[in-house]
Amino acid sequence: MLVIWQQRLEALKANRLFEFFAVSVIIISALLIGAQTYTDPSQPEQGSEFLKVLDLGVTLFFLVEILIRFFAERDKKAFFKNAWNVFDTLIIVISLIPIDNSEMAVLGRLIRIFRVLRMISIIPELRLILNSLFKALPQLGYVMLLMFIIFYIYAAIGSTLFESINPVLWGNISVSMLTLFRVMTFEDWTDVMYETMEHENGSAYSWIFYLSFIFFTTFAFLNMVIGIVVNVMEDERQKLHDEEFPDEPDLTKIQQEIQELKQLIVDMKK
Amino acid sequence: MLVIWQQRLEALKANRLFEFFAVSVIIISALLIGAQTYTDPSQPEQGSEFLKVLDLGVTLFFLVEILIRFFAERDKKAFFKNAWNVFDTLIIVISLIPIDNSEMAVLGRLIRIFRVLRMISIIPELRLILNSLFKALPQLGYVMLLMFIIFYIYAAIGSTLFESINPVLWGNISVSMLTLFRVMTFEDWTDVMYETMEHENGSAYSWIFYLSFIFFTTFAFLNMVIGIVVNVMEDERQKLHDEEFPDEPDLTKIQQEIQELKQLIVDMKK
Amino acid sequence: MLVIWQQRLEALKANRLFEFFAVSVIIISALLIGAQTYTDPSQPEQGSEFLKVLDLGVTLFFLVEILIRFFAERDKKAFFKNAWNVFDTLIIVISLIPIDNSEMAVLGRLIRIFRVLRMISIIPELRLILNSLFKALPQLGYVMLLMFIIFYIYAAIGSTLFESINPVLWGNISVSMLTLFRVMTFEDWTDVMYETMEHENGSAYSWIFYLSFIFFTTFAFLNMVIGIVVNVMEDERQKLHDEEFPDEPDLTKIQQEIQELKQLIVDMKK
Amino acid sequence: MLVIWQQRLEALKANRLFEFFAVSVIIISALLIGAQTYTDPSQPEQGSEFLKVLDLGVTLFFLVEILIRFFAERDKKAFFKNAWNVFDTLIIVISLIPIDNSEMAVLGRLIRIFRVLRMISIIPELRLILNSLFKALPQLGYVMLLMFIIFYIYAAIGSTLFESINPVLWGNISVSMLTLFRVMTFEDWTDVMYETMEHENGSAYSWIFYLSFIFFTTFAFLNMVIGIVVNVMEDERQKLHDEEFPDEPDLTKIQQEIQELKQLIVDMKK
Repeated sequence: MLVIWQQRLEALKANRLFEFFAVSVIIISALLIGAQTYTDPSQPEQGSEFLKVLDLGVTLFFLVEILIRFFAERDKKAFFKNAWNVFDTLIIVISLIPIDNSEMAVLGRLIRIFRVLRMISIIPELRLILNSLFKALPQLGYVMLLMFIIFYIYAAIGSTLFESINPVLWGNISVSMLTLFRVMTFEDWTDVMYETMEHENGSAYSWIFYLSFIFFTTFAFLNMVIGIVVNVMEDERQKLHDEEFPDEPDLTKIQQEIQELKQLIVDMKK
Repeated sequence: MLVIWQQRLEALKANRLFEFFAVSVIIISALLIGAQTYTDPSQPEQGSEFLKVLDLGVTLFFLVEILIRFFAERDKKAFFKNAWNVFDTLIIVISLIPIDNSEMAVLGRLIRIFRVLRMISIIPELRLILNSLFKALPQLGYVMLLMFIIFYIYAAIGSTLFESINPVLWGNISVSMLTLFRVMTFEDWTDVMYETMEHENGSAYSWIFYLSFIFFTTFAFLNMVIGIVVNVMEDERQKLHDEEFPDEPDLTKIQQEIQELKQLIVDMKK
Repeated sequence: MLVIWQQRLEALKANRLFEFFAVSVIIISALLIGAQTYTDPSQPEQGSEFLKVLDLGVTLFFLVEILIRFFAERDKKAFFKNAWNVFDTLIIVISLIPIDNSEMAVLGRLIRIFRVLRMISIIPELRLILNSLFKALPQLGYVMLLMFIIFYIYAAIGSTLFESINPVLWGNISVSMLTLFRVMTFEDWTDVMYETMEHENGSAYSWIFYLSFIFFTTFAFLNMVIGIVVNVMEDERQKLHDEEFPDEPDLTKIQQEIQELKQLIVDMKK
Repeated sequence: MLVIWQQRLEALKANRLFEFFAVSVIIISALLIGAQTYTDPSQPEQGSEFLKVLDLGVTLFFLVEILIRFFAERDKKAFFKNAWNVFDTLIIVISLIPIDNSEMAVLGRLIRIFRVLRMISIIPELRLILNSLFKALPQLGYVMLLMFIIFYIYAAIGSTLFESINPVLWGNISVSMLTLFRVMTFEDWTDVMYETMEHENGSAYSWIFYLSFIFFTTFAFLNMVIGIVVNVMEDERQKLHDEEFPDEPDLTKIQQEIQELKQLIVDMKK
């Protein structure tokens, strides 16, 4: 009995129409969230009764969909080993938390927004893009650590030297790091620089601080990121090629065969 | 009779001089459009009589040119299967719409501007560049969808949290998305951020919202785009190489030949 | 007699010490130009007598250096076929024009500045970098043409639609192209956009104009440039590899040899 | 006796726990530096006694750690040939300089900040990233020199032409170079340009100066950097591949073997 159900659910799960329907529900859910931003927040939400019902419907639909996928999976443990399933379950569980208290209304809204992320887990192409991005993460992680160290050192220097000039920008190490991020994005960075160059407590040589920082972060960072991306991609191309032609021999294999051939001829001579 | 005409038209179509003449006409047409922007829009156009005649001449020339190309093509269906022919026809048909009403004058001008696009369909090198760009489109399309989802989620969050702080920037989900695009281009994004950090309804932690958004869009996007471009290009290089050396054997072929050789020797031994 | 001189000049030309001396003279020449920017332009130049003599010395040195190179070259025609020689000769000829008139003093100064460019033609590594950049130029040229067409069309549209809103930014097609270049560099582009969105003659939908322009130029351009650079570089790597291993056989060659081997064995059997 | 100590120290040096402990100490040291930026600089530092003791502890720990590494190394000369060891020793020696004078307090603080750099020399992955960045440095160096020449020439021109318009931005060649760096980062560059275009001493054609500069620096620079990065990376991939498969024969080797085979068969025929 259960097996029959499992088979039916498995078929449903693989159904293109079902996938299309699920995507549609997510889009409607997203449009609802978007529509709510047009209402006046200070007034009681108009048509909110209708929205509430629809919202409940969407949540229930998602709940049913994930239950179907869960029961369609034969190996229950494998279900939670897939990061995407954990991701989906998490979103739905959070959506189910009842938030009636009007003070928590904003929080409730925010939770509903994250349901749009389900779009990524449903469309296979988006999952592929994210998966290949995740593969670059370990290498990118160390680049980020290096960047953080550079930021930290410059922020400590900046905070020590420039605090008396502008405490809003250089008051402590956290604020200094935010200021440095601003400099890195080139957003009005000359205003920050000219201030420390012209102030009586500053120095005309403080441009060295900014220019060396920009050089280290922008250019070095660009270098490393391009390097990693091209590297990861070449690896994937190689893997894909190996999968496509699994039996293609390499040069070592060819050399072996030629040597076997030689042995054959040498044997013949005897 | 018709066949002779077709041959003559085909010869004309392939003529370099004809191509050069067509490009010249487009350049004159473009210069005319440019020249008109120097006239005072509130006054009656001076010398407009001369411009009108020239304009009509250009339109007629284009009409004749496409008719020639149409009749020079033997297979009339194939003519419209080529996207560039459809593109050209569309531009000319729109150019032919008579707009005498002075209220529609602006619309008429805009239509004439699009004629400059014909430059792309006439110069073969530009068509090549665009074609190779189009090949990256399907992959880029999904990256765009992913970006749109990230924008949508952040816009919904931003609209929920910051609407009371600055309704001009965060009033509804559309305006919020435009504001986020501005943040993504680093255009005065710190002004937007500092406002939400310092406002009484805002939070000192709202920098998390902006920095995570910048990280997801700018850096992740850069990664994906570089990845796709390098990928598409390597594929084209491979294809070009295969076309240049269509008979170059791969390693599998070499291995087969060696094994045939072995068989020959083994047969000899018997 | 002349032959002996030519040999001596050729030896001098290849001399590392001579190269070092020439670079030193250019650096001194550059520092002189830099030092002159510190003097008050409204006052008579102090110490200008000394500078004038030094300047004349540098010019004469360059003249002698290029004459040496010219006479050291056996084939006089080949000398002018090298673009770098033409470049050097041009700079020196311009430097020799006597500009005593005080009104032309600024022009004279500008001409002297270009002498610093000789640095590039003397240091071999810089010439290499520029040469590899020039190889990408033909392909980049068409990308530039495509960009110009996009700029022209958007400038014509912008000038037509927004001239009445802000004639300083959109008055005619030239000014509009400059404004669009500003938008492309993201420099205060939202100020330009918000103005046309909020003005009574503008439209709330004018963001479509800006966003589509940014998309076409920034992203498409980035794609094409990265593509071309990687392409040109792979070609050069391939060429370098072929030069390093000129005798490395390709797979077609290997296949041929195996087939010859087969023939040998088949012949034996008979 | 000494040998036993050396072995013990070598074992300690390779110990993961020891590495973890060293990283922890650096992080604590970094947090201390960060915490100090939150104190009011005009007031006497609170809890500074405790901080001083901790600081001394960290310095001593680093001193002991490097002494251990020094004695664990059998070949004392090799120790100082490793750039990372020199780097570490330098940081510690500078940390040991006693700065009690209150006027030098700021300098003392700055020196302590550089201790955070030790993080890079301890974590092997960060060292790897930096090493591969250093490999691109010789090529990048020449690109930098080329950029400097372009900056110098444009700064000299800008200073000559625009000094009377705005001496703050174009007063001398150093200030002009800083202004040009600002233009290169697109930071309010239109303000700089419009000023020289509209001023009576300026020229409406000065946009040529800015646009050509942006083109040369931004685009040419982007090209060269991407080119170098991809190049360096392909070389490293090749090297890595050669290390992984040191015995993989190349096509020349294969061809040789086939020719030996042929010789064998020809010999047999005789």
